[in-house]
Amino acid sequence: MVNTKLIVEYDGTNYCGWQIQPEVSTVEGELQNALVTVLKQRVVVASAARTDRGVHAKGQVVNFKIPFSLSPFQLTQALNSVLPPDIRVKKVQQMPEEFHSRYSANCKIYKYFIYNYRYLPPWLRKFRWWIKFSLDYQEMVSAASRLVGRHDFLSFQNKGSFSSSTIRCVEKIKIDKKGPLITVLIKADGFLYKMVRNIMGTLVEVGRGKFFPAEIADILSAKDRKKAGPTAPPQGLFLWRVGYPRKFLEGSLTKIKG
Amino acid sequence: MVNTKLIVEYDGTNYCGWQIQPEVSTVEGELQNALVTVLKQRVVVASAARTDRGVHAKGQVVNFKIPFSLSPFQLTQALNSVLPPDIRVKKVQQMPEEFHSRYSANCKIYKYFIYNYRYLPPWLRKFRWWIKFSLDYQEMVSAASRLVGRHDFLSFQNKGSFSSSTIRCVEKIKIDKKGPLITVLIKADGFLYKMVRNIMGTLVEVGRGKFFPAEIADILSAKDRKKAGPTAPPQGLFLWRVGYPRKFLEGSLTKIKG
Repeated sequence: MVNTKLIVEYDGTNYCGWQIQPEVSTVEGELQNALVTVLKQRVVVASAARTDRGVHAKGQVVNFKIPFSLSPFQLTQALNSVLPPDIRVKKVQQMPEEFHSRYSANCKIYKYFIYNYRYLPPWLRKFRWWIKFSLDYQEMVSAASRLVGRHDFLSFQNKGSFSSSTIRCVEKIKIDKKGPLITVLIKADGFLYKMVRNIMGTLVEVGRGKFFPAEIADILSAKDRKKAGPTAPPQGLFLWRVGYPRKFLEGSLTKIKG
Repeated sequence: MVNTKLIVEYDGTNYCGWQIQPEVSTVEGELQNALVTVLKQRVVVASAARTDRGVHAKGQVVNFKIPFSLSPFQLTQALNSVLPPDIRVKKVQQMPEEFHSRYSANCKIYKYFIYNYRYLPPWLRKFRWWIKFSLDYQEMVSAASRLVGRHDFLSFQNKGSFSSSTIRCVEKIKIDKKGPLITVLIKADGFLYKMVRNIMGTLVEVGRGKFFPAEIADILSAKDRKKAGPTAPPQGLFLWRVGYPRKFLEGSLTKIKG
């Protein structure tokens, strides 16, 4: 069996999220259909993350096993020719048998985009959180730094998830401001249900002066969802990149093959 | 009467072009409706250009006369609160009585965006012409330079227009390449029907080796639409900016007022 990895990019606007569900359109459902068309057989697809309705991905990772080998170039072309244009396969790679898109991942990076201006340009409306009121960038940076580290993020988790532990390690939060665009990169070993959007909602509350940065510690220690800010809207969020151990890197794979 | 100028930005994807028509959705129609809602009266709207179905604008200019004065800030906010999110008013300005968005214009700038890569990212699909085959950028630059100047552009005009003369002065064509993105800026004193898209279709034929740059002179002198390349698709095209004489610039207006 050939363990095949895809990197998938999608505009989540028109989908009820990643995960396949009956009677609604989902990204996973579209990908499954495309795979059946191309491979002439049903395969079990694993994915690194289940993005919510309206959330986008620039680097979703999936893998599946097929009983024959296909050229990565041909498989990319074939899938993209049958997938709808809001879902694209960026890359196909053959992986060692033990690689699993979710269980092998050692970190995930999300990016969230805010457009902080008096109006939102039409072409960005599906990919930005539009905020008209002014945001104090320095206060947001200060608040973000207090979220970095190993914490119980229960206050930032919405109901509806099934995590046995709510402790996660946030390795990095980087906030960049370039004109009206505010980009927040969050890297962690894992994320709770709606954690990025709850962090974003909280950082914006800090930016508008409703919370002080120092209150982040209280919100974390309260372990109470009601203490944090609201859930930011989905359209600003992108699953950006999924990290794997060095042994799964492309260079290493070539060496193993050789 | 107060002569009022708007700069309008829109994503043309979901509209049958700019110009108002019965029973279909147009950008002008949406703007007219918004003006009636806000001003409680119908006004005659003039526009700098009539963009086609699926074409976008970053700097469409319109003007109309109203019998009372409104603060530019309030009018912007009011219009944007009733317009659909794919149409935005960027700026409102009071103008001298003789200003007309179309007849006062002395140049127009269009930009056309090509994405030259093996796949098109989902978020760009409504705003780029996706070209998979490789394009020779230097050949395109060379061909473009031969279009600059005062020429009869009949070979680049589609049927369906009503221009008394087909002579136009193209002041500048600038082609930039940055990774897979090729941006073509075209500045002229005026444009014939589908002229930019016909120029683009022709430049792409040069880029793929179907025409030599030197053949541009023959295409121009043939005065025959069939000699030029095909019409490029609408979604890569943006009406970028409309130029007016110095006396209508914002700085000059303030001076006149003072």
